[in-house]
Amino acid sequence: MVRTILSGSSKYVHSAIREEDDFADELRRQGKRVVKLSSGDPALYHPTPKYIVDAYVQALTEGRTSYSRSQGVVELVDAIVERYRSRYGVSMREEDVIVTSGVAEALTFMNSALIDPGDTVLILKPYYTQYPVAIQMFGGKFLLGAYDESDGWSIDLDGLARLVDRRKTGSKRIKYLLITNPNNPTGTVVPRRALKEVVELANEHRILLVSDEIYDEVVFTGASFTSVCELAKGMPYMVLNGASKAFDATGFRIGYVVAPESDRTSEELKRKLADYCRVRLCANTPAQYAVASAMGNRAEHERTVRAMVRAIESAVATAMKTLSENPYVSAVRPNGAFYIFPKIDLKSLKFKDDRDFVHALLEEKLVQTTRGSGFGAPGHFRIVSLAPDEVMEDCVGRVNEFCKEHAR
Amino acid sequence: MVRTILSGSSKYVHSAIREEDDFADELRRQGKRVVKLSSGDPALYHPTPKYIVDAYVQALTEGRTSYSRSQGVVELVDAIVERYRSRYGVSMREEDVIVTSGVAEALTFMNSALIDPGDTVLILKPYYTQYPVAIQMFGGKFLLGAYDESDGWSIDLDGLARLVDRRKTGSKRIKYLLITNPNNPTGTVVPRRALKEVVELANEHRILLVSDEIYDEVVFTGASFTSVCELAKGMPYMVLNGASKAFDATGFRIGYVVAPESDRTSEELKRKLADYCRVRLCANTPAQYAVASAMGNRAEHERTVRAMVRAIESAVATAMKTLSENPYVSAVRPNGAFYIFPKIDLKSLKFKDDRDFVHALLEEKLVQTTRGSGFGAPGHFRIVSLAPDEVMEDCVGRVNEFCKEHAR
Repeated sequence: MVRTILSGSSKYVHSAIREEDDFADELRRQGKRVVKLSSGDPALYHPTPKYIVDAYVQALTEGRTSYSRSQGVVELVDAIVERYRSRYGVSMREEDVIVTSGVAEALTFMNSALIDPGDTVLILKPYYTQYPVAIQMFGGKFLLGAYDESDGWSIDLDGLARLVDRRKTGSKRIKYLLITNPNNPTGTVVPRRALKEVVELANEHRILLVSDEIYDEVVFTGASFTSVCELAKGMPYMVLNGASKAFDATGFRIGYVVAPESDRTSEELKRKLADYCRVRLCANTPAQYAVASAMGNRAEHERTVRAMVRAIESAVATAMKTLSENPYVSAVRPNGAFYIFPKIDLKSLKFKDDRDFVHALLEEKLVQTTRGSGFGAPGHFRIVSLAPDEVMEDCVGRVNEFCKEHAR
Repeated sequence: MVRTILSGSSKYVHSAIREEDDFADELRRQGKRVVKLSSGDPALYHPTPKYIVDAYVQALTEGRTSYSRSQGVVELVDAIVERYRSRYGVSMREEDVIVTSGVAEALTFMNSALIDPGDTVLILKPYYTQYPVAIQMFGGKFLLGAYDESDGWSIDLDGLARLVDRRKTGSKRIKYLLITNPNNPTGTVVPRRALKEVVELANEHRILLVSDEIYDEVVFTGASFTSVCELAKGMPYMVLNGASKAFDATGFRIGYVVAPESDRTSEELKRKLADYCRVRLCANTPAQYAVASAMGNRAEHERTVRAMVRAIESAVATAMKTLSENPYVSAVRPNGAFYIFPKIDLKSLKFKDDRDFVHALLEEKLVQTTRGSGFGAPGHFRIVSLAPDEVMEDCVGRVNEFCKEHAR
């Protein structure tokens, strides 16, 4: 028999979020109108604000098309420093900021920089699909803390503390603890008090804390967001963020890492991440200037992001209301990001699992969602709530109809 | 003692090409005018052609700012298929093309997809600096074939055959053979007959062949370029390429992989690379449309690329002529790409090694080049020949002066 040429670790590389994309395209070629509620892409429904596109065009016409500084053009780095100063009251230097091609690239670099085969990372489920992939790409393993569905998807702090406590020493030590706030796919906005407990836990056990805060400006229903950088002082931590969500600029692929502390771990990690950046030369150059300009235009930004978040809050409310009429699913109301993550009552439906459910829903009702097992939560599915209210109502209505048709 | 938090493999992650960038920036802050002959960036001296920038602007104004197809937008994929059909007479399907954020990302994905810890890859020295980094990031090792300086930097085919022969079986088998044509940093354009021998060697031993052909349109002095895809039939191979050099669009970060064969290895590799692409969502969206449009506009492309290559040929000739007056260095004339890779007569100069040489050259003469040891060839340095003739003459003149001043 011919052996596969692929590496052992490559088997973990798979995107649940995009796994139905090719099938959806096939349906479209058959003339069918598929509604995509699987991609966390605000720009699909809310065009990237004109002032940002204008800045991008200006960068191009000014000739910003060559390779640029690997860790990010100084204009963007300075804009990020200023964003964290004005928004979170945290001061940092240019060396504390690393610009990447999306948070995706930051995750690859970070895991390569930190993970030796066999190392363990602590993440919380349900998790963003790329986390375990990026860990396992480098031979790492992960332990699972949890967002507790029965408690409104809040972080199970006691469980987290127990996991950390069991892995205090030696080779079993946890390499880093990753949280996502607001969380994808649960929409959890971690309350300040809970976040403080997480920060203290990491600090007490001297575990590097990583916080993916890409949705930090997408918070609603009166919830209040706290960044890890407001609480973590004198301990190594990194915040991941980018332009995709807050600046509605997904296709630009501009992410960044900020690590304002100057302890030994933070310093060696930043220096190494800069090495990773140099090896790949740079992120897209004109897009960096566009985002730098966008961050500097705070009036326009506030106006446009507020309008987008209001529309998202309305889309979520509409989807939740329609979903509440469905006896076969139950969903916690999210306070941030733009996802709803309902539990499917599989015992009452004629589906083996969430994968079957999502695939049939796409095939029969032309609504593309994502299976919960891709986020570590089998028996759930993720609905992206970015479309206009009437589209959300129609699509969730189709989900309801679909469940009724497949009831046991 | 506090252990480092960094992974063992991360120590290999370093860019010789960019290692003096921070020092060069420091010199600039002191008011000094540094000339950068270290970055293989045509857009630094030849502005990206207007018809490409216009296409980029058009993509932006048409609202192409959301996430896009992970393996590349269909318009770009189709343009790449057409490029290979018209340029090399090779037909392929959309599934045979994978668009990446530069060749750098393709190298990361490819090595992650192929390398298990301990696996061996065969590369040729002098090599592009990222190759060993990307292999070692995943625990791989590399064997070194060679371009033979004493034979005008042509491939040492006998040596290559011997290396392959010794590693025929089992765990010692070579995972893939990587060549670069035209080569960075030697400027070698591999003659058709020699390329045929490489292809046959790989085919005979059933070794996956990878050819980095990013400089395929930058060929001069009458040399003729042959692509691996013209010769490799019925065997697994991949060609790496991108928009950076041929389209003078380095800052766009658009690379691609083509793999037209449909044997089992090629097919599973393409499917897996597509998985890697999905996990990171997409390459910069508007840049993909810009490159698609640029590839479709063949008249403008031919006109602009010819002008650029003529200028490069002239810059190389000027640099070579000036360099020939220097008794402390000797350089083979390149036939492609835009690098000169002189040997330094270290015995006649007061420098310990090429690193010292390059650093002092930057500090004293404000000319930034790259140490040869970064390419696996200690005792050499790389000069990028993209600047206008008078700049090349001036800078190489400073190199000559510098050598004279440091003669033993």
